Amino acid sequence: MKRDDYNLSLLCDFYELTMSRGYFNTPMRDKIAYFDVFYRQVPDGGGYAIAAGLEQIVHYIEDLHFTEEDVDFLRQKGIFDEDFLAYLLSFRFTGDIWAVPEGSVIFPHEPIFTVRAPIIEAQLIETYVLLALNHQSLIATKASRMVRAAEGRPISEFGSRRAHGEDAAVSGARAAYIGGCASTACTLSDRLFGVPASGTMAHSWVQMFDNEYEAFTAYAKLYPNNPCFLVDTYSVFGSGLPNAIRAVKDVLWPMGLKKCAIRIDSGDLAYITKKARKILDEEGLVDCRIVVSNSIDEYLIRDLLNQEAQIDAFGIGERLITAKSDSVFGCVYKLAAVEDDHGTVIPKIKVSENAAKITNPGFKRVWRFYANDTGKAEADLITMRDEPDIDQDAPCEIFDPEFTWKRKVLTDFTARELLVPIFEGGRLVYTLPPLDEIRDHCAREMNTMWKEVLRFENPHDYYVDLSEKLWTVKNAMISRYIKGNHDE
Amino acid sequence: MKRDDYNLSLLCDFYELTMSRGYFNTPMRDKIAYFDVFYRQVPDGGGYAIAAGLEQIVHYIEDLHFTEEDVDFLRQKGIFDEDFLAYLLSFRFTGDIWAVPEGSVIFPHEPIFTVRAPIIEAQLIETYVLLALNHQSLIATKASRMVRAAEGRPISEFGSRRAHGEDAAVSGARAAYIGGCASTACTLSDRLFGVPASGTMAHSWVQMFDNEYEAFTAYAKLYPNNPCFLVDTYSVFGSGLPNAIRAVKDVLWPMGLKKCAIRIDSGDLAYITKKARKILDEEGLVDCRIVVSNSIDEYLIRDLLNQEAQIDAFGIGERLITAKSDSVFGCVYKLAAVEDDHGTVIPKIKVSENAAKITNPGFKRVWRFYANDTGKAEADLITMRDEPDIDQDAPCEIFDPEFTWKRKVLTDFTARELLVPIFEGGRLVYTLPPLDEIRDHCAREMNTMWKEVLRFENPHDYYVDLSEKLWTVKNAMISRYIKGNHDE
Repeated sequence: MKRDDYNLSLLCDFYELTMSRGYFNTPMRDKIAYFDVFYRQVPDGGGYAIAAGLEQIVHYIEDLHFTEEDVDFLRQKGIFDEDFLAYLLSFRFTGDIWAVPEGSVIFPHEPIFTVRAPIIEAQLIETYVLLALNHQSLIATKASRMVRAAEGRPISEFGSRRAHGEDAAVSGARAAYIGGCASTACTLSDRLFGVPASGTMAHSWVQMFDNEYEAFTAYAKLYPNNPCFLVDTYSVFGSGLPNAIRAVKDVLWPMGLKKCAIRIDSGDLAYITKKARKILDEEGLVDCRIVVSNSIDEYLIRDLLNQEAQIDAFGIGERLITAKSDSVFGCVYKLAAVEDDHGTVIPKIKVSENAAKITNPGFKRVWRFYANDTGKAEADLITMRDEPDIDQDAPCEIFDPEFTWKRKVLTDFTARELLVPIFEGGRLVYTLPPLDEIRDHCAREMNTMWKEVLRFENPHDYYVDLSEKLWTVKNAMISRYIKGNHDE
Repeated sequence: MKRDDYNLSLLCDFYELTMSRGYFNTPMRDKIAYFDVFYRQVPDGGGYAIAAGLEQIVHYIEDLHFTEEDVDFLRQKGIFDEDFLAYLLSFRFTGDIWAVPEGSVIFPHEPIFTVRAPIIEAQLIETYVLLALNHQSLIATKASRMVRAAEGRPISEFGSRRAHGEDAAVSGARAAYIGGCASTACTLSDRLFGVPASGTMAHSWVQMFDNEYEAFTAYAKLYPNNPCFLVDTYSVFGSGLPNAIRAVKDVLWPMGLKKCAIRIDSGDLAYITKKARKILDEEGLVDCRIVVSNSIDEYLIRDLLNQEAQIDAFGIGERLITAKSDSVFGCVYKLAAVEDDHGTVIPKIKVSENAAKITNPGFKRVWRFYANDTGKAEADLITMRDEPDIDQDAPCEIFDPEFTWKRKVLTDFTARELLVPIFEGGRLVYTLPPLDEIRDHCAREMNTMWKEVLRFENPHDYYVDLSEKLWTVKNAMISRYIKGNHDE
């Protein structure tokens, strides 16, 4: 079956369907449930992550439906009754969704996506919601780290060939752009999302010609505006660089053009770029930039720049598009509350021996506090949804939910709510921003972070605290479970 | 734009297009080129890999075309002339392709996919071919390692939510099945490919009910055939296990049913499963299997089984679907030859300071030698395409291409060619096997491998040797380059 022969509604874990059929046959079917998406740990031991993937979730939910063919397929499983299958045929998402906008900086344990919907609807979207947020947040976060390491030098994402499938290449390039990459090699990501695609030549181009000089001059004649020559097919200094310099002087200079680049894809990038820079400058090619690629990541970028490698731009493939050093983003989807028959919200909790795995119960909001003098983000605070708005004119005392004697009084701040309404009663109420706006939002958000939080390793733990009310509800629920009332 | 609004033809690196336009405007446009796909290193330091992804490539190539919208998009880039854009509108793949069947065991440096086509066609398919082979081979290989570690216990793939996008979930489940997994949680992968989907309940199911016993009995009534109870929502021994046992006795036993399972998703899986097994047996639930999940991979499986954990089946998520410990499969696509105007095949080579990165030139075949007495694979041999078939009745001397004094004479063997024809003149000549046949082929192939080759770490290097003729051609080409003839 080809990709255009199916919709994504069956891209769900099978247990969503077995559970749904279970709810369908009980009064629980109409129960309103609240689920939170949050993550527990920043990949790579970092201090922050970048949220991405919401736009794909919006498209998915708007399109969510089961076709006759989907239902026929499920029927053959022999465990779904006809009433339930008929229900699926008319299924639409009718719930509410709040989420942080794409490009936002997010921290562990805070809800970044909240669903309020009849339990079956809330379950059926779980897999796709997690998949989209986990994938794109992973790549946006990794890209953000690499972009920071590159200190202003543009990074081009070109990992499609090592991506985990079609969508990993296309949506991955999108996420990398949100995280700050300048461009991609993935043409389809340009067509679909407007991520600027660029690219020049492969080793095969050079090999196809009788000699390297011919390959370079042919290319320069075709693309005289800023051509990039791949100079390591045979030997950078033995042939590649001299031939590139000849081609520039013979083709570009007579046209009055100077802008060009060389790309180096192998060898010791510090040694080679320094030597190449010197030769280029001596030959008068001061406008020739040096682009490097080959298994690069944020650690290698930092090392190369520390060693004064002469690099103007990076091309990054496999270590970005697969987030190689830590390829899992761990967003989870946890029941936070249900409504009783009178519409009262009853908090739910998932207890664990591991304190970090205990969920935050209830229907909640998340606030971020920015200091008015520095503009920097100081802390996030999770409150119950029914608590009043943060009073920006009064001091606000926050405390560490684990070590409650660690307290801090915030004054002279601006508090902003992170979760915004996306769907109301199944209707989209959010205007999806253009991709460049998302990318700009990310850059602005990053500017509000203290450098201490952004450190690659052992960063400062940004405060994500609970309101007094939430903390009290949570700890009362934990106590009840510890007293052995597991079945409540 | 939604997924059904586009085709995959633009899922190519942009440089394939810039190069293609370059070839288009020269006589080189009709040049026939040969490209090989091969990989250099087994992920995780293992000794073998499993090939997968060919079926998706076949669909991609059969569908390969550029729409008016694709061409409009490219036109806006301002660098492609109208002749070239018109050519794209009528573009079809007209070349030949050979590949190893999916599920085959493959080793570094041997061609697993060879393309013979006009240079533009050969370039335009590069990105997708690599993407599909790299992704699915990565996951099939990882699955194969986990399946071997589990020593016959079934593994269910359920990583969709942590997959790198939609296709990573769906095609990843397919690849995991080829590698030996028993099932998947990904419903869509069942519908599209027939990977058996299964699943039971999440923690949220348990939390939705007033108490755990009610959650379990409700589930057992709905699905009395082999239900699986998730017993760690609150406390495995404090409530989960006792409630599951009660539910089995109260619901299943009166129906005369005994088959069921518990799933444990947290905590120390060795300690908990041993204790749970003892309690289940004491309670008469000897037919209750124990399923475990939670960040499992081949190393943890081996450790758990060494510690005599009582596990009947595994559910594996993120560490399989993202191949977390080594998330990159490094297939490359390298020019191996071109045809001159008389149709003579001229070998091409990519030289590198790193000997392992030097390509094998020419149009080639790959043979695998099986010892007739043991049925085991002894070595692979790469020959030039125009060399005669291997004579199975004569001894065959092979030698290490690096240390040529290391020689071995093979006798009493069966030699089988690995690359089979897939496309001839753009026409599909290969019958795509059903998925179960691919999976069986993989299992059979694995049985022909010596255990030494399959070791997780520091495996025996399987021999992949070059024929005398190929070795001679290759070394002559290297010598010419070393003598400074870089431009030849």
